[in-house]
Amino acid sequence: MRIVGDGSPESRQKGKLAVRAAYESGFTHFDHADIYGGGECEKLFAEVLRDIPGMRENIIITSKCGIRGKDNPISGVPARYDFSKEYILKSVDGILTRLQIDTLDILLLHRPDYLFQAEEVADAFQTLQDAGKVRYFGVSNFKPSQLTLLQSACPMPLITNQVEINVHNINALLDGTLDQCQQEHISPQAWCPLGGVVYPAWGNTFSPEDEARIKAEFDRQAKKYDTENWIIMLTWLLKHPAGIFPIIGTTNSNRIKASLQALKIPYSREDWYSLLEARNGQPVP
Amino acid sequence: MRIVGDGSPESRQKGKLAVRAAYESGFTHFDHADIYGGGECEKLFAEVLRDIPGMRENIIITSKCGIRGKDNPISGVPARYDFSKEYILKSVDGILTRLQIDTLDILLLHRPDYLFQAEEVADAFQTLQDAGKVRYFGVSNFKPSQLTLLQSACPMPLITNQVEINVHNINALLDGTLDQCQQEHISPQAWCPLGGVVYPAWGNTFSPEDEARIKAEFDRQAKKYDTENWIIMLTWLLKHPAGIFPIIGTTNSNRIKASLQALKIPYSREDWYSLLEARNGQPVP
Amino acid sequence: MRIVGDGSPESRQKGKLAVRAAYESGFTHFDHADIYGGGECEKLFAEVLRDIPGMRENIIITSKCGIRGKDNPISGVPARYDFSKEYILKSVDGILTRLQIDTLDILLLHRPDYLFQAEEVADAFQTLQDAGKVRYFGVSNFKPSQLTLLQSACPMPLITNQVEINVHNINALLDGTLDQCQQEHISPQAWCPLGGVVYPAWGNTFSPEDEARIKAEFDRQAKKYDTENWIIMLTWLLKHPAGIFPIIGTTNSNRIKASLQALKIPYSREDWYSLLEARNGQPVP
Repeated sequence: MRIVGDGSPESRQKGKLAVRAAYESGFTHFDHADIYGGGECEKLFAEVLRDIPGMRENIIITSKCGIRGKDNPISGVPARYDFSKEYILKSVDGILTRLQIDTLDILLLHRPDYLFQAEEVADAFQTLQDAGKVRYFGVSNFKPSQLTLLQSACPMPLITNQVEINVHNINALLDGTLDQCQQEHISPQAWCPLGGVVYPAWGNTFSPEDEARIKAEFDRQAKKYDTENWIIMLTWLLKHPAGIFPIIGTTNSNRIKASLQALKIPYSREDWYSLLEARNGQPVP
Repeated sequence: MRIVGDGSPESRQKGKLAVRAAYESGFTHFDHADIYGGGECEKLFAEVLRDIPGMRENIIITSKCGIRGKDNPISGVPARYDFSKEYILKSVDGILTRLQIDTLDILLLHRPDYLFQAEEVADAFQTLQDAGKVRYFGVSNFKPSQLTLLQSACPMPLITNQVEINVHNINALLDGTLDQCQQEHISPQAWCPLGGVVYPAWGNTFSPEDEARIKAEFDRQAKKYDTENWIIMLTWLLKHPAGIFPIIGTTNSNRIKASLQALKIPYSREDWYSLLEARNGQPVP
Repeated sequence: MRIVGDGSPESRQKGKLAVRAAYESGFTHFDHADIYGGGECEKLFAEVLRDIPGMRENIIITSKCGIRGKDNPISGVPARYDFSKEYILKSVDGILTRLQIDTLDILLLHRPDYLFQAEEVADAFQTLQDAGKVRYFGVSNFKPSQLTLLQSACPMPLITNQVEINVHNINALLDGTLDQCQQEHISPQAWCPLGGVVYPAWGNTFSPEDEARIKAEFDRQAKKYDTENWIIMLTWLLKHPAGIFPIIGTTNSNRIKASLQALKIPYSREDWYSLLEARNGQPVP
């Protein structure tokens, strides 16, 4: 959760209210990363945990590590990934300290390190589990062959692969990622689920005509189900049999509460394919 | 078999003669789909079965389900795929009724449903097998990861993957589809095997120069083996070690009989690569 | 090793000196193919083996077969691959005769034959191993699905996949090839490791701007590590956790000796990613 916004007191207060609203609405899974807000998001989340007695016991906290920024820790080093055991262990200590918790529920490796040694990562995971610092492990943005490689070295199951899925980017539906998830009972999570609906998708390639056509279909479905376009998008993701968990990124408390509507819509297969057709600009063959 | 043509009495009669010619020539495998001719092809085939005593016992009948058309069953629904248990069971009942047979030899899922749940499909297959309605199961147009997923849930082997293979579209040779077939002893079937030879291939990307170069090589080989270009194409497919079964789509009785020539041609590896080179416009590296 | 150069006495002498220099520098693995120099490279290598007592026992010799040239053995036949048992057995006999050795340490299949039957290749390998003609087997330029298919039929492990990897072509890092190697403990070998550095890469797509940017980064790193650009490239390959063995193709004795520097450079993860960033023209996301 990028809950600190621009870091101003107002933004931080809004972020805390968003977390509280989510918790009070019944959300139980909170998604972090060591790099969100440069660590400030985890710290702010800790304040909410401190303010709401019993909250920690009722929720699942995910955080991620493995991305290291340009010029960090020293000037001149490039943006890079680092799955060395040393860096993973150090990162988790930082996460636990910032979140002020003893155990992280789920640790994800944020983006596949070109240089990861599967045995070394498995060793780091085992060390973290043995020390009681992390309960479960997963990955993010992994291709099937990368997940298979890492799993082959890990004694514990990798329980999730968090990838970008939205109306613009459906690669995970096409490249075997969700096939692998369904087969191996790995829960896929979708980041930027509302890209192309609420905000532009990364590397958008839709033409204005595409966008108009897609929006018209969203409009039609939102009207049919008496809801909003972005709720339809969440519903579309939830319909997939791999069991996609969309990561809701907003800090708008009303939106957080409203997003739960998506769970209750009796969304039809026909509408799922109609949206795919609008997205593709042509019917399936 | 799209044996009803335009549905006219002449077309239907031609279709029946084609089936009879195929059977009398020694063909034993007939390929249908619930959507060919809107179901009329299966019905017409049933007439031939009724006319020729003993034919049913001597042949293998394949049919397919899973594609649902636009505006069917109600206006406004899109073209889509449906591998729900309910729809598969209902589709097979329709196939059996139209073909007037008790048991379908092979059922294929026509195109991969984005929303298929492997366990649900496996359950449908088991139900059909237990009821004696279908003997064997397979798929069509599946990517390797999709076939692997479905097989992981099915107690019975998936025995075929029917994909497009022709001189224009050799994706199955390149993307692992035929590697998987050879490894898992799955029989690949080729639809539109004569695309780019007898009729234009789907989504043709060959330039006129490409087509002239390819035709010249077909001409050379047809002359060498004393046969016709389209027979060479069948021979080329039959040469592949995965054991490709080309699906012959013609209703021309003479062509049906002639196609058996392909089985007898002592086609050389050198000619196989010469045709590949003509197709690619360059030698292999 | 393409050690015969243009075939002139001077070239041949240079080639022999290169082999000797490599051996005396501590190189223990020599990479051949039946087609290098039309067989002359293997013959020339045999002369060196004869000249240096004890060399054969101290080195590992790889050779490759499976590529057959245009117009060979008769005019009009195309460039092609041939993994038939008959051709593999005959090829190895040729290799052993030219190298004047009794046993080849490693036999690689040079490029995947579209028509290879895994069982037939496995049978050829077993025959060669039983006859004491080949100790170990591997492949070259295989996609993961092809290697998996062949391995599924072979009782012995395939120990290497020799593929093109260089600053221009990093496909093996992206398409699962190196993931498979790491997982299955297959040693990848890199051919043309210096493509794009010392000589243009195959099918180069870099613009002059790309090349300038990449060279600037090589220059920076070479200065930092007090070495040369091409040594940095070897170091970059050696840093990969799959355990890449770069195939050094030069016949320049000084370069051969110098290349060993790459093994001693304490190359950092940060520099690895800086070179990737220069190659890609953008930082990792």
